[in-house]
Amino acid sequence: MTEARIRSERLWESFQTLGGIGELDDGAMMRVTGSEADREARDLVVSWFEDAGLTVRVDPVGNVVACRPGRTDAAPVLTGSHIDTVPRGGKFDGTAGVLTALEVVRAWNDAGVETERPVELVVFTEEEGTRFGTGLLGSLVATGVLPLEEALALTDDDGQSVGEVLADIGYRGEASLDLADAAAFVELHVEQGPTLERTDTTIGVVENIAGITHSRVTFTGEANHAGTASMRVRRDAFMGAAEFALELERRAREQAETTATVGTVGKVSVWPNGTNVVPGVVDLGVDVRDTDDEALDSVLTAVSERAAEIADERDLELEWESLLDVPATPMDEDVVDRLADACEALDLSYTRMPSGAGHDAMNVAAVAPTGMLFVPSRDGVSHSPEEYSSAADLADGARVLERTLRGLADE
Amino acid sequence: MTEARIRSERLWESFQTLGGIGELDDGAMMRVTGSEADREARDLVVSWFEDAGLTVRVDPVGNVVACRPGRTDAAPVLTGSHIDTVPRGGKFDGTAGVLTALEVVRAWNDAGVETERPVELVVFTEEEGTRFGTGLLGSLVATGVLPLEEALALTDDDGQSVGEVLADIGYRGEASLDLADAAAFVELHVEQGPTLERTDTTIGVVENIAGITHSRVTFTGEANHAGTASMRVRRDAFMGAAEFALELERRAREQAETTATVGTVGKVSVWPNGTNVVPGVVDLGVDVRDTDDEALDSVLTAVSERAAEIADERDLELEWESLLDVPATPMDEDVVDRLADACEALDLSYTRMPSGAGHDAMNVAAVAPTGMLFVPSRDGVSHSPEEYSSAADLADGARVLERTLRGLADE
Repeated sequence: MTEARIRSERLWESFQTLGGIGELDDGAMMRVTGSEADREARDLVVSWFEDAGLTVRVDPVGNVVACRPGRTDAAPVLTGSHIDTVPRGGKFDGTAGVLTALEVVRAWNDAGVETERPVELVVFTEEEGTRFGTGLLGSLVATGVLPLEEALALTDDDGQSVGEVLADIGYRGEASLDLADAAAFVELHVEQGPTLERTDTTIGVVENIAGITHSRVTFTGEANHAGTASMRVRRDAFMGAAEFALELERRAREQAETTATVGTVGKVSVWPNGTNVVPGVVDLGVDVRDTDDEALDSVLTAVSERAAEIADERDLELEWESLLDVPATPMDEDVVDRLADACEALDLSYTRMPSGAGHDAMNVAAVAPTGMLFVPSRDGVSHSPEEYSSAADLADGARVLERTLRGLADE
Repeated sequence: MTEARIRSERLWESFQTLGGIGELDDGAMMRVTGSEADREARDLVVSWFEDAGLTVRVDPVGNVVACRPGRTDAAPVLTGSHIDTVPRGGKFDGTAGVLTALEVVRAWNDAGVETERPVELVVFTEEEGTRFGTGLLGSLVATGVLPLEEALALTDDDGQSVGEVLADIGYRGEASLDLADAAAFVELHVEQGPTLERTDTTIGVVENIAGITHSRVTFTGEANHAGTASMRVRRDAFMGAAEFALELERRAREQAETTATVGTVGKVSVWPNGTNVVPGVVDLGVDVRDTDDEALDSVLTAVSERAAEIADERDLELEWESLLDVPATPMDEDVVDRLADACEALDLSYTRMPSGAGHDAMNVAAVAPTGMLFVPSRDGVSHSPEEYSSAADLADGARVLERTLRGLADE
């Protein structure tokens, strides 16, 4: 077998260059779907793909696919991740899976490696879901879970739709991407947790991905003057929302004693949002996750019941809209074993572990054999400017990815 | 004495016309300082002033002053209010004081009334404080409490300054307005509370205005991934903020059993504000008021101590910035008596009462004899699209204002 050599410096340089797009003065990343920074970053990655001899296509929801032909036209092996960031995020989340895949292809090109099956690199649209409220958007469409028209019609806080912003940046394509056609999918990602670092382990081989729910919880009371509406008469939507948030925290903490439960109120919108106005409407973006589906359900049920009680006690209206509800997803056993075997062969320390974060891989797993591998995150931090993974760990991750993809593509 | 006739229909029509500027589809008003709607509204009011023969000038913080000369150059009598609204506010708050003053002048013009002293109509800038965080801004500058340079340098959430937005809309003037030069100031306002309506009273003669504090309270933790940061390790700024808000509510409710205390968290900003990100920073706009200065102090002290404890318990940083701190303000006894006498003479029901809301009059009271009168607010609602005062009540208010101003201006 031809030996392909992953070049750590070249890989690291790609991170530096891409990390310069959408970077704020303090190093935080702001590369939200459909922004100017998103366009620039996509253009750069596409140019790198083309320079590496890949044929690039774009599907109608903006997913970018770069194909490296195989000796045959058999079903392709796919790999990739995303390059959108949360507001004030970091340079590694998502990007790691795209740039290590690119480095694998560059290494294959250097060594003249050919594979039996085509290998395709994918950059998914709106993985983070920060702008349009629905995470994993690109893979939801490419796996047939979310109809394209619904995805394109989603709007941001300013009323702009996914379809509009993709057209604006030139990434509303016409090519097709159906992940059910894939022979396999492998996604490399930063761990975003402290386990690998704390145990001095280089690679995490993901066995299953925690179930995720996103809900929009809206409390509606009555906007009123902060000086003249007495405490007795007011129907303050924010106080109801605050009480609900603390209840979610309490329940998640309690459940987390036995399972891997997390509960978060990450997004808060207050109307009319003036210091001297009693809030009339408060919208909360609520994220609850667990590797145990039953435990997740029980937390959600408990907090939604309590939300109804709070609304009742405070004479507020309550709306609860489920935006995302993905059960815990086991990875494909064969792909998991191949990733573990690759670590053994490369003499890299590894551990089998769950993923607390959601990834496009959880959608792909429903239609094709799928696996994931993690590289360590410094201090376990992600979705933050402090997010960091070392050049050495990323290169080791690329080596495991290279070996695993080659094995899958030569079947 | 020449009889001046307030014309209810003309007054009401002014409300309809001005209320069309910055009106959203559902009737809510969005006329924030320095917005395009603010510019249009100012231009309209200035044109009405000029049509009524008044000489209009604009001071450096955008306060508009329209002068009706008297027989002499004695110190002028001032009246007026503001036309900025909170986001999604109503058509009467502030506007009532400006348009009734205009109607008084129109009635005087119709009847050929002359006064000894000049009478000046004032439209104050950024009374609501929603955009730049400091309420009563125009009167703070025109009474010498806030240096002009500081006022102009205040910035909104997007970093735009007061000076910039006033220049943009053409209302950064060069004329002077020093309220210490006024012989008296009278402000008509909607009550924004339910007292007049519930007691079937037409006019409220304000005896004192509640003290007001605005604070910016910032909790800083650590932004992190909502899926991988376990409940145990997270430093969630929003949960700290929620706990603080509920403590403010509890303390204000408790104190409100004996004094007229209100405590509000009206403005909430969360960073980075993504559903799947643990909040790293939360900024709260906090409003606490009381007609009893000591009671207000004790509530503020208690909640700020508790805020420090919450921050400590949750490993958050706490910043507490005082943006506004105005003690309770008694109105001038002579002006109060004149307003009551005018109600008697006009055979209108009235009551002497405190104001729970803050008004520019509280700043002016420090430098000139000042009084206020209220007209009823339907259901006591304000700072809301539901805000409403009847044409009949507004006309009665204008009649009391007319009589009182004439008396003061003929001294």
